[in-house]
This record gives sequence, structure tokens and C-alpha cells, in this order.
Amino acid sequence: MRNIKMLVEYDGTAYAGFQRQAAGLRTIQGEIEDRLASLTGERVTLYGAGRTDAGVHALGQVINFHTACSIPAARFVPALNNGLPDDIAILDSAEVPEDFHARSSAKRKTYSYRIWRSARKPVFERHTVYRYAHQLDIKMMMRAVPHLLGEHDFSCFQAIGAKVKTNTRVIHEAVLEEEGDLLVFTVTADGFLYKMVRNITGTLLEIGIGKHTGDWLIELLQSRQRSLAGPTAPAEGLFLVRVDY
Amino acid sequence: MRNIKMLVEYDGTAYAGFQRQAAGLRTIQGEIEDRLASLTGERVTLYGAGRTDAGVHALGQVINFHTACSIPAARFVPALNNGLPDDIAILDSAEVPEDFHARSSAKRKTYSYRIWRSARKPVFERHTVYRYAHQLDIKMMMRAVPHLLGEHDFSCFQAIGAKVKTNTRVIHEAVLEEEGDLLVFTVTADGFLYKMVRNITGTLLEIGIGKHTGDWLIELLQSRQRSLAGPTAPAEGLFLVRVDY
Repeated sequence: MRNIKMLVEYDGTAYAGFQRQAAGLRTIQGEIEDRLASLTGERVTLYGAGRTDAGVHALGQVINFHTACSIPAARFVPALNNGLPDDIAILDSAEVPEDFHARSSAKRKTYSYRIWRSARKPVFERHTVYRYAHQLDIKMMMRAVPHLLGEHDFSCFQAIGAKVKTNTRVIHEAVLEEEGDLLVFTVTADGFLYKMVRNITGTLLEIGIGKHTGDWLIELLQSRQRSLAGPTAPAEGLFLVRVDY
Repeated sequence: MRNIKMLVEYDGTAYAGFQRQAAGLRTIQGEIEDRLASLTGERVTLYGAGRTDAGVHALGQVINFHTACSIPAARFVPALNNGLPDDIAILDSAEVPEDFHARSSAKRKTYSYRIWRSARKPVFERHTVYRYAHQLDIKMMMRAVPHLLGEHDFSCFQAIGAKVKTNTRVIHEAVLEEEGDLLVFTVTADGFLYKMVRNITGTLLEIGIGKHTGDWLIELLQSRQRSLAGPTAPAEGLFLVRVDY
């Protein structure tokens, strides 16, 4: 069996998330698996580096699957792109060692969250930003961001009900940048808890509107209380940007 | 009666064009007129500077309408934006002299046509570009563009069946620019024949793939034969950018 790794871009607006679900729900995994089945005659199972939720986008999702077919790895790019919907693109494809796994082999993942600050409606960006027109104290938000860096128990940012072995993660990079009408929060970590980026973003916005100071983030992390953090920012602003191995 | 002028932006993907049509077809004019009716209690008729076709977009469409209501002109912006779909935005609103007419008062209009040249699928731009992955001789296309400038009978670029008093128009500016994966054709004229920009674009692409030289455009204009020009480029790449009065 060969192991194929692919780089995938998608607009998540029309999908119930990455992961295959009950029949009738369109998912990224489902679309690509179906297209692979008609191409190779095999039913394969895709593994994705990040199980992005409904409405979340990807510029650089990584997937892998095992196949007995003899199609050259590079040929998968045009062959899949032709049959896939316009909102999913295969950017690259390569054969990798048998033990490579898109999720468990990942060393770092990078997500970006895009906040639209203008009073102007984001007509062409309406599915790829979170519209938040309130006045924001950007300097105060920027003061909070460095407190996220390093190894922490991020329980306060984990969706309620999620269960994993440990809530400790290492954030390697975290930046908040103004880009025209957009405020973009980009974060790189060894891994993320469920809805962690959207919960951090919702909390940064609460700091931005003056509900808390930037330094309050230190207390919040120590509390490990999800109930003290801000609300979950909506899915449409979130992008899985890159996965490093 | 007051005369209100508005600047409007829209993503035309979901609409059967600007102009109100048979019941059941969604149009830009219909959406704004309906919203105005629920806001003012009056049924008004909107006039648009350009009657953009189905799938064509606008960054700066100009409309006007007459109303007896007393709502301050600037108030129309938030009031309409709240009720309009996410893909239509009112950017500005002002009271103008009674004889102002969005179409007949227009001195110049500017359209842009966006061509996507990369082999990569335009996932997030899929509704706002024409994907054209063939090899193009951009220099040859650029050589053709200046021949469009000035006063000409543009019959060769008019959609078959269209009837207007004269096919003579003045093109004031025409440029072809490379912007990353995009090739953008921008043209300013005192007016345009039906489907003129899309027909010019289709012709420039035929020059780009080597079917004709750039200088052949001179002959084409003189011929006044629609049948000699290139095909109509698809709607999704076209934007009404600006209207000058």
C-alpha cells in the first residue's frame, strides 16, 4: 500500500466541516473520498491534520490516505481538481513513508482568524471574515497576545464537553496585525484544543471592548475556567493556514 | 419630490442582473426597491447607471430614485444595509438636484474584467474571476489595447440583436495589467454597447492565444462585424467599478 499526502485549500461555507458525518451532510472529507473512489475504484479513508468545523476554511489543510492504485502521486492534483467542486482545490500531492499520518505526525499548526472592523459591509468577504464593528482598543489586545506564548494549560479556551488526555499545549507564535479593514490574529502551536482559536479570539475581543485589561489573560489562563473567558467567535473568520511536520 | 443618489456595491453571483424582471427572479433593483418600500411605505422606481447582467458585479454602481419621504439622505445607508442581503451594500447616499438621472447624467463609466491565469483553482475568487489557464502573449494583448482608445464605431463588439441610435462611443482609458495571478482589463468610456466589455475581453484573449496580432484590432474595428470578433467572456469576471458625472 502507498501512502499519499496532499495539500488542500477550501472555502468551508457550504460544508458541515471537514469530517465525514451522517449521510446527506456535505463534508470536505466526504467530497474528496467520493472523488478518489471514482478515480481509483477504491474506498479509502482520509486523515486530515485539522478537523475544521462547519464554515471554517483552509488555505493549507494536509490530508493523507493509503491506496493500492498505481496513479503517480502528482497526477492526483489535476485528476481530483477536475471532479471536485469549485470550492475545494488540491494544491499538491506526494508519496510519503508508510508511517506518515496527517494528524499525529503534525509538529505545528497555524490558524488565522480574520475580524472585519469597517462599518462598510464586507460584500465580497462576507463568508471569510467575522464582522465586528465595535470600537476596539487594539493596543490593549496586542498587550494580551504575548501572554499566550509558551506552554500553558489552555482549559479556559477549550469548548465545554471536549475530552482530551491533557489540556496543555505550546503556543510558539501569536500575532495580531492590522491589514486595512481587517484585524488578523495568527497563532502557531504544537496542537489546539477544540474551538481554542475561536475562544481565544472571542476573549481578545472582550479585552478590545474594555471588558478586561490585557494582563487579565494571565489570571484567565491560571483559572482554567472556560466560563471566565469570552464567547466563541464564529466559524467564518477562521482559516487553517499551515501544518508543519 | 426629493431625488436621492446612492453608491452601491454588490456581488452579482446570486442575481439575474441589476434590472427588475419577471416575478420570481432576484435582481439588485428588485431587492433595493423592496427594501425602500418597507422603509418609506412608497413604491419607487430605481434608475441604475449600468444595467449589469446576471453574474456581473459592482464596486461603484450609481442609482437614483424620487421619493416624498423625509428620511435624511445619509440615514438611508444604515437603514437599507440592515435589511438588504449580505451581498448588496449601500456605500453612500446624498440628495441631488431633481434633474439628476443615474444613467443619462453619467459622463463616464469604468469597468474592470478579471482573468485568472493560474493553474491553481481560484477557490475564494471563484465567483469573481474568469478562469483562463491557456498560455497568453500578454505583450501582444497590450499592443492591441491602445487601438481601442478614442472615438470609434464599436459595432464589432456589440451583442447581436441589440439596437441603439449609434454604435459610436469614446474610450478615454484602457489598460491591461498583471496583478499576481490576475490579468485585469480596465476601460473607461462615455458609454458602452451591450456586452461591449465582455466582447472586447474575449477578443483580447484570442489575440493572447495567437489567433490574431495586436494590430489586427484596427481592421476589426473598421469591419464593424460582430462575427469577426472573439467570443463574449463570461459574466463573473466583470465589475462596474465607477461612474463619473
